[in-house]
Formats: sequence, C-alpha cells, structure tokens
Amino acid sequence: MKVEYINPFLSSAISVFNTMLGTSLTRGEPFLKDGTQPNHEISGLIGLSGKAKGMVVLSMSREVALNAAGTMLGTQLKEINADVADAVGELTNMIAGAAKAQLEHLELSVSLPTVITGKAHCIDFPKNTMPICIPFDCKWGSVAVEVGIVE
Amino acid sequence: MKVEYINPFLSSAISVFNTMLGTSLTRGEPFLKDGTQPNHEISGLIGLSGKAKGMVVLSMSREVALNAAGTMLGTQLKEINADVADAVGELTNMIAGAAKAQLEHLELSVSLPTVITGKAHCIDFPKNTMPICIPFDCKWGSVAVEVGIVE
Repeated sequence: MKVEYINPFLSSAISVFNTMLGTSLTRGEPFLKDGTQPNHEISGLIGLSGKAKGMVVLSMSREVALNAAGTMLGTQLKEINADVADAVGELTNMIAGAAKAQLEHLELSVSLPTVITGKAHCIDFPKNTMPICIPFDCKWGSVAVEVGIVE
Repeated sequence: MKVEYINPFLSSAISVFNTMLGTSLTRGEPFLKDGTQPNHEISGLIGLSGKAKGMVVLSMSREVALNAAGTMLGTQLKEINADVADAVGELTNMIAGAAKAQLEHLELSVSLPTVITGKAHCIDFPKNTMPICIPFDCKWGSVAVEVGIVE
C-alpha cells in the first residue's frame, strides 16, 4: 500500500474526533499490521471501491466507545448496545468520507459501515495488502485506525 | 432492505461452495438480523457501493473454515491462520462478485474483503438497514450469509 494513502485517514480521524467529540487524538507510530494483533473491543469497518479497493477500520477500547457514543447522543452509556455500535459506525463513516475527499483521484465510494464487537476479535486483510495501523490515544483510552488499499 | 436483493447472494453462496469446495449448502430459514446474535467464529466481510451501499458477511464455524481452506489449498489445516483467513476472504469475494453480476442495475463495485476471527464476535449493521441473515448447513458445519443493502 502507498504510504501517501495513510495521511488522509490520519488527519480525518484527528479532525472527526475533534469536531464530533471535542477530543484530541495523540498519534503513535504507524506500523504494518500482520493480522496477529488483536483489535480493540469494538471496530467499525467500511469498504472503499473505485480506482482502488480498500477497507478502513476504526477500532477502540470499550471506554472510548462508551464515551464517544455518550457524547454524540448526549447521554451516559454503560454498556455496548446498538446505539454505541451505531455511533462507532457513524464515526467510521465520517472518517472514511473525509479521507475519500482528499483522495479524489481514486474516485472512491464507500460501503455501508458495520461494527464488530468482541473481546479478542482480530481483523485480517488479504495477504498482499500490507495494511497500515495508526495507533492513537485520547483522554478515554486507545483508538486505532487501520487502512488497507490496493490499486 | 428489498427482499429481491437476497436471492443473488443466496444462489451465489450455493454455487461458490459447490464449485470451489465440492460441498452442498442446505439453506435454512432467512431472518432479520438484529445484531444481538453472535456470528460464527470466522466472518469474511466485503463492502458494496454503487447505486446502493451494502455489506456482505460470510460467517462460518471453525470446522467449516478449516475444511474449506484445506480444500482450496489442497492440504490439511488444524488452526486458524493467515491462510485460512485468506481463503475465507476469497470465498466472500467470490460470493459478492457473483451476486453483483446478478444485480447489474445497482452498478455495484466491491471493496477489499477483510476477515474477522474471534469466538464471540458480533457484527452490527446500521440501525435502519434491516440486514437479512441466511443460515446454511454443509457437511462440515454451519455457515451464514448476511446481507445489508440500502439504496
């Protein structure tokens, strides 16, 4: 995967967390994901297609998901339910949408988002994809954005 | 979601299992998925976009995944690894590709597939999607195809 495809997702994640949740994301060191690392407890996925194909994953700890959904819905949430999943899907959608606008030449369109919950779930990309994972921290805990795109 | 969108995925799943794995799928009763039902241990996901947006999930038990991947690779597999995930992603891709051809008027294109592993993972679609799950049985165990499409 071309490294220049990563920056739009990185900046979109920071901007979406900032505007939607009033929360700063602090970026860690990006790394190549090999599929053996388990994801955080909740992951939003959205597919990309156009002149390239891809998948974007927004993965976060339970605490981040509960606080993010609570902020979006203006209420306090204590368990992962359909409202929390919907909020995580919506954040994933917004990040993919904002990144897509920065990758105009790929003419990407986005799929429906889906949200995976499960304590030790792993997300594997196809072998030749070389997906990149960008770890982030915010005041509520850990977040990661993973992107795999092939032309 | 329109019920007529389901049949192409149903027939494609049967046909892909038949031609790629030499295995018959027996169909159970389709039902509306509400996100509280856990998926099988391994799920392949692929996004759809075009005149409609969607996500297709091919979920299967560990036994089915090991036997399916073993058949595709001509070897015996005993644990879920990157080869098994790749095989499940490829089956998902083939089912989505074959179904897409039957839904020409939607001008769908498919994203990269990703594969989720995890014993109790759940997959949630956005609230207003009304995804349909088609359960299947084959000689190795349980398989399910879930489709959510919105125009």
